[in-house]
Amino acid sequence: MRKIEVCLSPELIHLYDQRDKIVVVVDIFRATSTMITALANGVKSITPVADLETCRNYTSQGYLIAGERNGLPAEGFKLGNSPLSYLNQVHKNQKIAVTTTNGTLAIDKSRNGSAEVLIGAFLNLQATADYLSLKNNDLIIHCAGWKGRFNLEDSLYAGALVSVLSQSHTFDCDGALAMKVLYESVQHDLGSFLHQASHAKRLQNHNIEEDIDFCLTLDKYDIIGKLVGDELKAEKVYKAKPSL
Amino acid sequence: MRKIEVCLSPELIHLYDQRDKIVVVVDIFRATSTMITALANGVKSITPVADLETCRNYTSQGYLIAGERNGLPAEGFKLGNSPLSYLNQVHKNQKIAVTTTNGTLAIDKSRNGSAEVLIGAFLNLQATADYLSLKNNDLIIHCAGWKGRFNLEDSLYAGALVSVLSQSHTFDCDGALAMKVLYESVQHDLGSFLHQASHAKRLQNHNIEEDIDFCLTLDKYDIIGKLVGDELKAEKVYKAKPSL
Repeated sequence: MRKIEVCLSPELIHLYDQRDKIVVVVDIFRATSTMITALANGVKSITPVADLETCRNYTSQGYLIAGERNGLPAEGFKLGNSPLSYLNQVHKNQKIAVTTTNGTLAIDKSRNGSAEVLIGAFLNLQATADYLSLKNNDLIIHCAGWKGRFNLEDSLYAGALVSVLSQSHTFDCDGALAMKVLYESVQHDLGSFLHQASHAKRLQNHNIEEDIDFCLTLDKYDIIGKLVGDELKAEKVYKAKPSL
Repeated sequence: MRKIEVCLSPELIHLYDQRDKIVVVVDIFRATSTMITALANGVKSITPVADLETCRNYTSQGYLIAGERNGLPAEGFKLGNSPLSYLNQVHKNQKIAVTTTNGTLAIDKSRNGSAEVLIGAFLNLQATADYLSLKNNDLIIHCAGWKGRFNLEDSLYAGALVSVLSQSHTFDCDGALAMKVLYESVQHDLGSFLHQASHAKRLQNHNIEEDIDFCLTLDKYDIIGKLVGDELKAEKVYKAKPSL
């Protein structure tokens, strides 16, 4: 049976053997939620970039650039890190270069020998689970955290994904077990619980309550986000039909 | 109000400012449980030592030496890492030097500017909470984990201590919140839940089921374990009487 491990911070990912595994990177507030929203709304590709300067240089190649630091839009960037700014296909067919505080670093650290890198969000939880259940690879869920520290929203997403995959996958990883049990004990009221998260409080101070609620919407989109070369692209998931 | 933070691995402790804080190190299976048992059974002092060789050298100074690697007693060491080997005051008044896979490293990393370093266990949960509630310092609970990775038993101890201290302390730390909620959701059946932990399974393979049950006993001892210089010593806690 395929195995799941959960890595609670990019500062711990070197302790995991990523070879031949699918790594799902998650940064719920808001990098990966925003990326999934953009891809589901027709954005052609998203290039995650480590620093602001490199990201800025992409404008000369016709990219839109999106930058965020410490929860706020970076100076001189057209787009920040709000999923709402990608709705209604307003940036359809455009290429975007993105840099964020935690998410882009976690994506970069997930390439180390892994078979595939996906980005995950509550917005496409079931689609990601459907995709993973069709693959034979073991799985690492890589939480972006906050500046290296554990955070609640990414860890709860990990718990949610472990919970959804518990029929097809097994785990012998304390992080997976802890987050599955935590998720299942709060899932009936995930929104209220996650409003206590330190980063949600940080975002509330920036008046982006709407973003938080949006990022916690379950299964709004049926695509997955997958790294192809240096670009994240949408892929439609065709769920295997149960055999008759 | 005093603050609590929870650090889920020694690989993350550099992200925490330890200055003037009390750091409680926990390695439930079994280093800190064994240390508390030893101190409660009259052992004079315990010197945590990073490596086996340094630990061996303590014999020439009249110390008993205790060594464990990967859950098994280290070769040539009189004592391994079982709390049961300290019961009935069999090593009363002796000085012990100890090295373990995870616990002694975590203790060493907790000295970085902190006001005090304690060791914690379920065995003296309430005594440690009583002591902390009498002090004015902020608190970091430092989980020893397993070779740098998150583990269930240390994290649940962290949740238990946060839960017990929730009247006197506050927290704005996702790790503290997550572990408190997880602990409160499984505390009615902590033993069964923790038998699923990866390290419990590892220990079950070594036939030390009795150790596991012992380490999960709540409030058997009323002392705390505190680092004084390079030695861990027992200290009796005098609980403040409620004012009339």
